[in-house]
Formats: sequence, C-alpha cells, structure tokens
Amino acid sequence: MPKISDRGIEMPASPIRKLVPFAEAAKKRGVKVYHLNIGQPDIHTPEVALQAVRKFDQKVIEYSHSAGNEGYRRKLAGYYQNIGINVDHNEIIITTGGSEAISFAFKTCMNPGDEVIIPEPFYTNYNAFALAAGVKVVPITSNIKDGFALPSISEFEKSITPRTKAIMVCNPNNPTGYLYSKEELLHLRELVLKHDLYLFADEVYREFCYDGNEHFSIMQLEGLEEHAVLMDSVSKRYSECGVRIGALISKNKNVIGTALKFAQARLSPPSLGQVVGEASLDTPKEYFKEVYDEYITRRNLVIEELNKIPGVYAPMPKGAFYTVVSLPIDDADKFCQWLLEEFEYEKQTVMLAPASGFYATPGLGKNEARIAYVLKKEDLVNAVKCLEEALKVYPGRV
Amino acid sequence: MPKISDRGIEMPASPIRKLVPFAEAAKKRGVKVYHLNIGQPDIHTPEVALQAVRKFDQKVIEYSHSAGNEGYRRKLAGYYQNIGINVDHNEIIITTGGSEAISFAFKTCMNPGDEVIIPEPFYTNYNAFALAAGVKVVPITSNIKDGFALPSISEFEKSITPRTKAIMVCNPNNPTGYLYSKEELLHLRELVLKHDLYLFADEVYREFCYDGNEHFSIMQLEGLEEHAVLMDSVSKRYSECGVRIGALISKNKNVIGTALKFAQARLSPPSLGQVVGEASLDTPKEYFKEVYDEYITRRNLVIEELNKIPGVYAPMPKGAFYTVVSLPIDDADKFCQWLLEEFEYEKQTVMLAPASGFYATPGLGKNEARIAYVLKKEDLVNAVKCLEEALKVYPGRV
Repeated sequence: MPKISDRGIEMPASPIRKLVPFAEAAKKRGVKVYHLNIGQPDIHTPEVALQAVRKFDQKVIEYSHSAGNEGYRRKLAGYYQNIGINVDHNEIIITTGGSEAISFAFKTCMNPGDEVIIPEPFYTNYNAFALAAGVKVVPITSNIKDGFALPSISEFEKSITPRTKAIMVCNPNNPTGYLYSKEELLHLRELVLKHDLYLFADEVYREFCYDGNEHFSIMQLEGLEEHAVLMDSVSKRYSECGVRIGALISKNKNVIGTALKFAQARLSPPSLGQVVGEASLDTPKEYFKEVYDEYITRRNLVIEELNKIPGVYAPMPKGAFYTVVSLPIDDADKFCQWLLEEFEYEKQTVMLAPASGFYATPGLGKNEARIAYVLKKEDLVNAVKCLEEALKVYPGRV
Repeated sequence: MPKISDRGIEMPASPIRKLVPFAEAAKKRGVKVYHLNIGQPDIHTPEVALQAVRKFDQKVIEYSHSAGNEGYRRKLAGYYQNIGINVDHNEIIITTGGSEAISFAFKTCMNPGDEVIIPEPFYTNYNAFALAAGVKVVPITSNIKDGFALPSISEFEKSITPRTKAIMVCNPNNPTGYLYSKEELLHLRELVLKHDLYLFADEVYREFCYDGNEHFSIMQLEGLEEHAVLMDSVSKRYSECGVRIGALISKNKNVIGTALKFAQARLSPPSLGQVVGEASLDTPKEYFKEVYDEYITRRNLVIEELNKIPGVYAPMPKGAFYTVVSLPIDDADKFCQWLLEEFEYEKQTVMLAPASGFYATPGLGKNEARIAYVLKKEDLVNAVKCLEEALKVYPGRV
C-alpha cells in the first residue's frame, strides 16, 4: 500500500473534531449538548442576502473572474473605504472563505522552511495552513493573567531569526477575544519595518469590538503598504459561514499579482457565495445594532456567570465572541471529553474547545478552554450552569 | 520590501489569462470574440438545481460538515453505485471544486520532492497544484499523430524513479478529448501495483463519451482499492462551474482520513453549492440526452470544418468537449495573440488556448491549440471561419 505523505501524518486533526463522536453519543443518550465549542453563530443571515439567493435568475452558474466578480470587488472596496481602509478593487482578491486567504498569503509570501511569528493562543488552523505550506509557526505566548495582551516587542525580537518572514495577528482575537490597541499595532509596525517582514492580520471579527473600543486595522498603519496583508471573511460579519467567501487584501502589487496566480489555478471563488457577499453589503445598520446588542448581552452574561464559579477565571473580552477561561482542572482535553462522555446535569451537558489546541507550545493551555458565546441567553445560562455543576463532581478537579 | 516566495515566482500564470487583455481590447474595438479557449459551457444548468437555489429557506447559511453534508454524500454515493462505482458516503469528501480534490490528493499522498507521472498534454493547473505542494510533475508525451493515446507502458517504466509516487490521468481527457480504453487502464493497473504507486484520475468529463464508447473508471479496476484516488466535479456534468463543488473519492481509509484533516482546516465546502449539487442528482435523463446530442453535433461540426482548412489537423475526440488541433503556424502563443490583437474578419475573431501551456516539456505543442466546442453551432461555424481566414493572412504561417 503506498504511503501517506509526512505532512498528512503531521497535520493535526482538529481538537474539537476529536470530541464530536462523544457529543453525538451524548445526544443519542438523550442528553442536550450546548455547543460553546465552535464559532458558528445562531444569528440570522441578513434578509437582503437571503433574498439575493432566492432571486438568483441566471441560467448558467458560471465561473467568475479568478479574483472574484469585479462588481463585488468594487463595492467591497467601498465598504473598506467607509471604515478608513484605503484600497481599490485591484487590491482585493475574493477568496473561498478566510481560510483560502490565509493559505494564499502563506504560499505567496513564504518559502518552505520560513517562519511566521504568531502570538499564542491562536486559531488552530493557522498551524494547518502553515504545515500545508511547509512553513514553521513560531509562537510567542500571551497570558490569561494579562488578558492575553500582545507580548512585549522584546519578546518578538528574541524570536526573530534569519528565516522569519512574517508576523501574524488576529484582531479582534480568536480564541481570546483580545482587541489590540493602536499602540500595540504601532509597535508591531516598527518591528516589521526594522526587520523587513510581512505583517499578516486576520480581521474577520472587525465589527465585534465592545465597550467603545474602536478597531484599528493594519491597513491603516502608515508606511506599511508593502508589508501589510489583510485576511478577511464575510462568515462572522453577516453570519454566513457556509458561503465560503473571504478576501485577501494588500497594497503590495507583487503579493496580489502572485496570489492571483494561485487563485487562477483554482479557477474562481464560489459564484453563489459572491452573490450573497455582494448583497450583504446593503445590510441595514439596524441589523448590526441588533447583533451587537445581542453579543454584548451574551458576553456580559457569560463572563459574569463564569467568574462566579469558584476557581474559574474568564477575562472580559473586548472583541469577537470568544473567551478563553481557566478552569480548576487537571487537563482540559480530558475534562471536555468527560463532560460529553460521563457527565450530565438535568439531561444536559456542555461542549467546550480545549485550549491546548490553540497553543503551539506543548503543555500550555492545559487548564484552559475556549468558550464561544454564540447561543441565545437562556442556553448560555444553562450551559454555564452545567459547567458549574460539572466542576463540583469532576474527578480531575484541582 | 519583503520578498515573494520562490513558488509564487515559479507559479505559472495561466497561458489563457495572458491573452485576456488582448481579448478585452478587441471587444473595445467592436470586434466580436468567439471564446473557444475555456471550458465554460453555454449549456443551461438543470432547472431542478436552479430551483433548489431559489427555494433556499434556511435562516442561517451555516458551515457544513468538513467532508460535506452527509445527506449529499449518501445521495452521491448512490449516483456512483448506479454507474458501477462501488463507494459509500464515508469514502467521499465533498471538495471546493475538482480543484481542491486535486490539491488534497497531492498534499495527502505526496511529499515535497515526490514525483507524479502525467501524460502530456495535460490540464495546466495540475502543474500549479503540484508546484503549490512542492511535487514534481514528470510528463510522458502523447502525440497528436496517435490521437493522443496513452503512451506505452515501457515509456512509463522509463520515467519511474525512487521518488515516483503516483500516476495521474484525466479521462476523458482535457485538453485532447481522448478516452482511455479499458485495456489501457488495465495496463496502468499492473504498473501501479508493480511499483506500489497511487493512481489518480480526474474523471469530471465522465458523462461526455461519444460514438458508443463507454467510460471505464479507475474505481472499477480490481485490486486497486488502496491505490485509486478519484477526483470529480459537478462543474461540467451539470454546467455548474461556478458552484465550486467537487469530490475526492477513495476506498483507501488512510487517504480519506488524511484528506479530511486538510478539509477540516478549511472548515467546509460551500453550503449553497452543496444544495445545488444535491438537487442536481435529480436531473432528468432528458437533460443529459439533450446536452449529449448538442455536444455530438458541435463536435462533428467543428472537427469536420477544422479538417477542411488546409494544413489543419484535428483528431476526432471520443470524449469531453475539447480537441487539440495542429495548425500551419510558427508559434501558437504568437498566433493566438495576433488573432486578438491584429486580426479581424467581418468584425469577428476567435480566441484559442495555445497548447504549449498544456505540455510540461519545453518546446512541445508549439503549433497546436486547444479548442473547446462549448458554443452554439452558428457561433462555432463563424469561429472556425475566422480561423480559416486568419490562417490565409497570418504572417507566421508555415
């Protein structure tokens, strides 16, 4: 039998996916499972987007331009201009989800063996795309004690080697909910210029910034035009995870020109998804207001309830819809499986994402889990109650 | 300014895309351009599929399972069983177009530096996906004189090295229209077993086999369960190029299990595309009969007209909707550009794909072009007429 590739063997299976069979088994036993483990919001997709699908009247579902429909790109450039990001449609490639934007950026900017520095904990799949591209992720640890603030610039400098090619941030952050300040980004700017690196930013949670904090984009950093590469997605902004529409954005013409060659190889991003993405740009402001208010309520509720549980600490997230909590347990991987396999409270349990999967440094995040507050309030209350009851009886409690 | 990656620099820009600005300029001059250069059929998408889009009634466009919706995979397994391919839904991963199936197969089965043998001319993007995966394409040349039949097994054996990991065929073939016989595939079977290789097959044109010839799939080769990896797509079958829905299929559990990890990294294939793909499985037989009859008529017409032109030779394709023709010219790249830039006949011209882009061996295919017979009959007649008139006056005629 021919062998599987080494990268295939090394490619991590998603830590959440490992728990899926246990969640399914729990459901079969009649236990209700609250899914706080995945960023699939229950928020409705904007009506204007759903209507565009229902009104689709083309007779042939054709390939689009490899960079995406020009009409969509022009309108999307307008969206960016409105939020202070000065790009035109030629500086945008529509991608198949934010995922493909990450993949294109890694393959375009880095050689196999090159290194990208990413503050950990970070979105697990950065590792997967790096592995697929033969690129090495060099983590710098941010700590729950500091609310997961950006590590100091001296920490970054210690990690820079001749193979370092890029720094990557997710802002607001998945999984921590941390929002980088303008000052932190200005520090990164200096570092990137000093060492002639790329600065990658995943800003898919841009619209989810709380408590009056404003989002500051890497595309707004002056003098960084040739260095800044933005990855974006409609998935969270409009609750359209399934359309698989994202974007790769840069003012560096070499980056866009080269990424376009990768885009041409896969022909085009999804045509129906682009119809949805373009229509979504007409989403009324009230939609965002409602969604925003809903998330604020959920966040305040879930953080308050979590911090009431003895031994639990959840920092207040300033953005996105996640928080990483520390739990009084021996091992979050074991605990999350135990929650699904052995625990139930009034025929209910909760599914969390063990945080170890978000750290590249082995051993970190062992007593932490990511919680996505993507459920309605009643469900969040019940879910946190389950967690509280579980911690009372979990055999690995410390 | 930070550098672009080496693979980004090496990644070929599509040879057809280079011609696009010239085609656009011609249109601006008021010249009608017949596009015989791209496999975007003008055939309508089945009504049952378009209706499924218009009836989409979910309130949230959610991620699907990373392997694709189970319901779709089960129904798709039924499609394969009906055509004599014995697979179940766990042996199928729904991909973002056939493109992603190729990319997953390469990354799953081959290490950087490994070699895949592909008969040339071949679909240009195999090269792009190989380059992205760090894999080397080793071409074996098939000839227009032999109608692009599979090169002899001894030719294959000459190309096998310790790094050879796979053989890949496209059947029916893009760009040649060649349909591999059962005997040819049985020879490949022996070779693959002898050297313990993977056999990859891109069978996206399966439904387009002419003159009573039946398609034989690599999945029907006995004893090849651990070796055969099938790449498929709904793009051509149902004229749904834009939905970006394909499939990776194998009975080798390691291959599917590993490819699923790559699939999990990109979360899910397009949800709306899957709605279309699933509904398309209910396309009535008459649709295929009509499409088939249309392509047969087009093929016969275009081949007959092409072979009437002095110095032109077009073998009769047995499948797909392409043919590679040899032309009495110095250089097809120059000629195709000249057709768009300098030539017009009654305010019309024709766009072809220079065949050099389909060969990996430098210098081959210099006097050949690929013609996709994806236009209606009147347009095909006009397009071939343009070609005839162009060859009368082209300065590089030989």
